[in-house]
Amino acid sequence: MNESLFLRACNKQPVERTPVWMMRQAGRYLPEYRAVRERCDFLTLCRTPELACEVTLQPIRRFGFDAAVIFSDILISLEPLGFGVVFGEKGPSIAKPVRRGGDVPEGLPTDFEQRVAFVYESIALVRDELPAEVPVIGFAGAPFTLASYLIEGGGSKSYAATKTFFYHQPEAAHRLLGLLADTVSVHLLNQVNAGAGAIQVFDSWAGCLSEVEYRVWALPYVQRILSALAGAGVPRILFTLNAAHLCGALAEVDAEVLGIDWRTPMRQAFDRLGDRFALQGNLDPTVLLGTPRQVIAETGNVLSGVGGRRGHIMNLGHGILPATPIANVEAFVQAVREFEGEES
Amino acid sequence: MNESLFLRACNKQPVERTPVWMMRQAGRYLPEYRAVRERCDFLTLCRTPELACEVTLQPIRRFGFDAAVIFSDILISLEPLGFGVVFGEKGPSIAKPVRRGGDVPEGLPTDFEQRVAFVYESIALVRDELPAEVPVIGFAGAPFTLASYLIEGGGSKSYAATKTFFYHQPEAAHRLLGLLADTVSVHLLNQVNAGAGAIQVFDSWAGCLSEVEYRVWALPYVQRILSALAGAGVPRILFTLNAAHLCGALAEVDAEVLGIDWRTPMRQAFDRLGDRFALQGNLDPTVLLGTPRQVIAETGNVLSGVGGRRGHIMNLGHGILPATPIANVEAFVQAVREFEGEES
Repeated sequence: MNESLFLRACNKQPVERTPVWMMRQAGRYLPEYRAVRERCDFLTLCRTPELACEVTLQPIRRFGFDAAVIFSDILISLEPLGFGVVFGEKGPSIAKPVRRGGDVPEGLPTDFEQRVAFVYESIALVRDELPAEVPVIGFAGAPFTLASYLIEGGGSKSYAATKTFFYHQPEAAHRLLGLLADTVSVHLLNQVNAGAGAIQVFDSWAGCLSEVEYRVWALPYVQRILSALAGAGVPRILFTLNAAHLCGALAEVDAEVLGIDWRTPMRQAFDRLGDRFALQGNLDPTVLLGTPRQVIAETGNVLSGVGGRRGHIMNLGHGILPATPIANVEAFVQAVREFEGEES
Repeated sequence: MNESLFLRACNKQPVERTPVWMMRQAGRYLPEYRAVRERCDFLTLCRTPELACEVTLQPIRRFGFDAAVIFSDILISLEPLGFGVVFGEKGPSIAKPVRRGGDVPEGLPTDFEQRVAFVYESIALVRDELPAEVPVIGFAGAPFTLASYLIEGGGSKSYAATKTFFYHQPEAAHRLLGLLADTVSVHLLNQVNAGAGAIQVFDSWAGCLSEVEYRVWALPYVQRILSALAGAGVPRILFTLNAAHLCGALAEVDAEVLGIDWRTPMRQAFDRLGDRFALQGNLDPTVLLGTPRQVIAETGNVLSGVGGRRGHIMNLGHGILPATPIANVEAFVQAVREFEGEES
């Protein structure tokens, strides 16, 4: 049996305690991360494997998480496609947003892999440093989420530009989504080849779609990526934020693990989806802005909702917030471990 | 029987065709509205009853909607409480955000009603101008949504400041929410007394809460407002954006009508909530950025989902977007009327 708690949980095998990691665990809430960032900007950090490796390992050293998510960004794989991705202090923006069909590149540039090779080198470095039972998680953005950045030119509230593009230029929209699916597939396979023991696809903004629209603009392209990874021999995690209304469509995806946000109670998620999938989540990241006592209580509530069922990976319901106190992360991790202690 | 199609639908009485209006129908997508706004800023427009009346009537004249929502803002009622609400081009902001318990006023200022009297005067003017069968809808923000603006200082993505305040200062948070509930109750009752024939409470941001948190921080204060309005003799509409996961809690509210966004199909909404409530919604407002053909098809899909059940008010699933072409609003209204034509 695999020694990794995390991989066993992904495969719904028995575990002696619930594995735990946090989305964006290598990030600004850590003083040692901020110290590195004082010396270089975000993109330099991504592009320098030694530094990316260092910040990926920081939360593992400090908290002993059961998986190490590689330090990178969901928009990194778009850089070689020529959209001019800018990583600013207030989130990413796109210098050359997609406005018409002609803005969609014909295909991946031939030097795609060289231009994002720093991600693969970072993964290889992290893999060398970690004990065998702690996998590296590679990741990428889902096509709908990536397309929304490219079309809006940055973040959005209503996704009006994205949906306008879809309604008026459906052929170009499907071409863009297909290109993004192919790009992400290649990027994730390369991450597995470099040593990633699991991959996660982030569909952060698909929750703005109704299920009918999700099945047109998001699901087929997520499926294309998951199929491309089917033979890679690693668990495939699909995280979709704000997806309580998309449960019926998510039940059909070809993945081992679904990431669930805090809006859906874990008990309900397991009832609806637990037969086919391992489930990852789902403490509201804002709970980690509360008191340690609240963190312990709410972590216990999540675990009680799971009710000891197989195939649970503890995580937050979205990325950890920069203002999170270290003591609350400690309380979170300890609460997961002690809850398991009570069970055995 | 009441002559107003809209009021009959709110009360689940038979109607000869589905009534229709749009959230934010008096707004920037209308050239005649933009012409008024060239002469004065947003707040001046709100505060000048003749102008507020004029822009409230504009969409009724142009499209013949079955209800007229008063031109105002959910944050208008916060002005007299001294938070320094600023209505900027990029949405509202709060000059003096709530940071601690001491920032929460003890109660409504004695001159509260004089300071928002322009809303009531505007309603009275509109009421005089409209035929009896077209009611004026008064409205206000729900306490959670208002509190989030006051604590964040504006819009938010994660509501981190709001939830931090709730976790660390629960007593002050409940005091703030209680004050907001009382303020909104008074403001809505005054709107009814001025001639509003229905009221709508907008809980635009409560969808960031899990159902457990919603039952602590949102539902009790919405209920307090709805109870205060119970004897006012007008239908009470509660609109909660992104609330697919809050269905269980919403089923308990004391309202005549629930507003549903596009994430929940109307068929499903009627199955879950249709016994107790009339339902309002729910075309995705971005559909009105598509082609007229798409508008007609998607409007038909919403109405097919309703399936002729009693108690449906056609609307968008959120406010109309400023970029919406007039021709698409015409197509929307006509599709509602023609769909009914097919039925009879």
